[in-house]
Amino acid sequence: MSRHPPGRRADYRWFHDLTTRWMDNDVFRHVNNVVYFSWFDTAVTYWETTTGAVDLLEGAVHCVVAEVMCRYHSSVAWPDRISIGVRAARIGGSSVRYELGVFRNDDDTAAAEGYFVHVFVERGSQRPVPIPAASRKLLETLMV
Amino acid sequence: MSRHPPGRRADYRWFHDLTTRWMDNDVFRHVNNVVYFSWFDTAVTYWETTTGAVDLLEGAVHCVVAEVMCRYHSSVAWPDRISIGVRAARIGGSSVRYELGVFRNDDDTAAAEGYFVHVFVERGSQRPVPIPAASRKLLETLMV
Amino acid sequence: MSRHPPGRRADYRWFHDLTTRWMDNDVFRHVNNVVYFSWFDTAVTYWETTTGAVDLLEGAVHCVVAEVMCRYHSSVAWPDRISIGVRAARIGGSSVRYELGVFRNDDDTAAAEGYFVHVFVERGSQRPVPIPAASRKLLETLMV
Amino acid sequence: MSRHPPGRRADYRWFHDLTTRWMDNDVFRHVNNVVYFSWFDTAVTYWETTTGAVDLLEGAVHCVVAEVMCRYHSSVAWPDRISIGVRAARIGGSSVRYELGVFRNDDDTAAAEGYFVHVFVERGSQRPVPIPAASRKLLETLMV
Repeated sequence: MSRHPPGRRADYRWFHDLTTRWMDNDVFRHVNNVVYFSWFDTAVTYWETTTGAVDLLEGAVHCVVAEVMCRYHSSVAWPDRISIGVRAARIGGSSVRYELGVFRNDDDTAAAEGYFVHVFVERGSQRPVPIPAASRKLLETLMV
Repeated sequence: MSRHPPGRRADYRWFHDLTTRWMDNDVFRHVNNVVYFSWFDTAVTYWETTTGAVDLLEGAVHCVVAEVMCRYHSSVAWPDRISIGVRAARIGGSSVRYELGVFRNDDDTAAAEGYFVHVFVERGSQRPVPIPAASRKLLETLMV
Repeated sequence: MSRHPPGRRADYRWFHDLTTRWMDNDVFRHVNNVVYFSWFDTAVTYWETTTGAVDLLEGAVHCVVAEVMCRYHSSVAWPDRISIGVRAARIGGSSVRYELGVFRNDDDTAAAEGYFVHVFVERGSQRPVPIPAASRKLLETLMV
Repeated sequence: MSRHPPGRRADYRWFHDLTTRWMDNDVFRHVNNVVYFSWFDTAVTYWETTTGAVDLLEGAVHCVVAEVMCRYHSSVAWPDRISIGVRAARIGGSSVRYELGVFRNDDDTAAAEGYFVHVFVERGSQRPVPIPAASRKLLETLMV
């Protein structure tokens, strides 16, 4: 029995839909492990950008990636459609740990899950700064 | 005045929708030129696979890529959605030249256009063979 | 003070050299977080394939990826050259946890570090099997 | 007999060495057609950057990609090492057409060949400008 049973869609707060590409499939005819991280990166950045939680390109404060992990439960293969579930698992002083689930087509059970830690930094110096209040408020809507 | 004015959606016969990824954007904040080829590759393979025109993985006859080109008219940037327009421009004895257009969001004018030549080969020997009649009939539906 | 001070080259047992690509750089002008995982994947697969520890393509037993993590210490940018340091951190009944360090150019301090868990499975059923004795012996040479 | 016999190393003026990645291999166990374009992009950008022919990031004049093509002669597969041969085929008023050859390991015959057209533009307006004299002089050293 797995120590990490796969999550369900109800475990996540926000979803972002993505398509797979033929070249995502590797010699085993399923999506290579690396590609999942591009989905995590895209889902987090899309949420941050469209909500205004982070202005990655122009903000005086933006975010850098500190740590990313993915655990693979079952495989996904092009041309599967992908939904990335997102939740905020821990909101610290300067960083947020997003947790992410990869859902294949209409599956309710995650094919993979992981996390993505973003640290808020001052542009230029790249030194960590407190999460701005407005960003924190938005991040709290992602808490489960 | 350009020798190659951008095409329109009406110039293509079939469309495949794809999403962009954050990492597709390069230092210029738009999608890197390489990524367009992953869209061409995906659209052609999707059409061939779902129509049954080519059984890339198990067919006695499958296809190999002979030549690919892309001409860039205007830029595309994540999180733009992409539609790839597909048409068959030349169906030869053993090969087909697909022509492809990249349409950004709801734009009617192509942001980029190119071609993708697939050669029908015998699995194993990889030697060119005549396009099977059933495949040819399907390809003809993509002619403009 | 970081809870995870960066490792040094001496902390790793085997190295694999890789080149960066212009498109690896993202809008921040450094290598996107996703790309590091392609280096982990390549270094592990290269070691397994060239030592014979795993025959990924033809073996009756091969490996599937269970979990991958990367922690980012400092940035890397094209055209930096990369050395991936590899060590085996835990060799279990059916799985091995590789630990990996990303070294930029001639730096002695890791720019990033992480792990990659490979599970030995029976081809076809994909069920975990005991690590074959010959593979285990090779993996032990990667222990620190 | 092919209308486009593969070129040789002697047909190119400058070479750039690159490594392949495990995920470059697709379901056919060789490098996917898209990846070749990342090599073209990297080789051209490396030459332009290290010679000073183009200052892509900070120059008042930089370059945009107008058109890219690749013709595939024979396959390449990870872990092959790659050398990209570069020559300048046509230096126009505002643009240069680089021609590129993909050489596998120590092969003298190209596995693939293509071209990459860079247009010199004014930063900001992105309007074409005459190739600066110093850049033209450098490009001429790439003519065959």
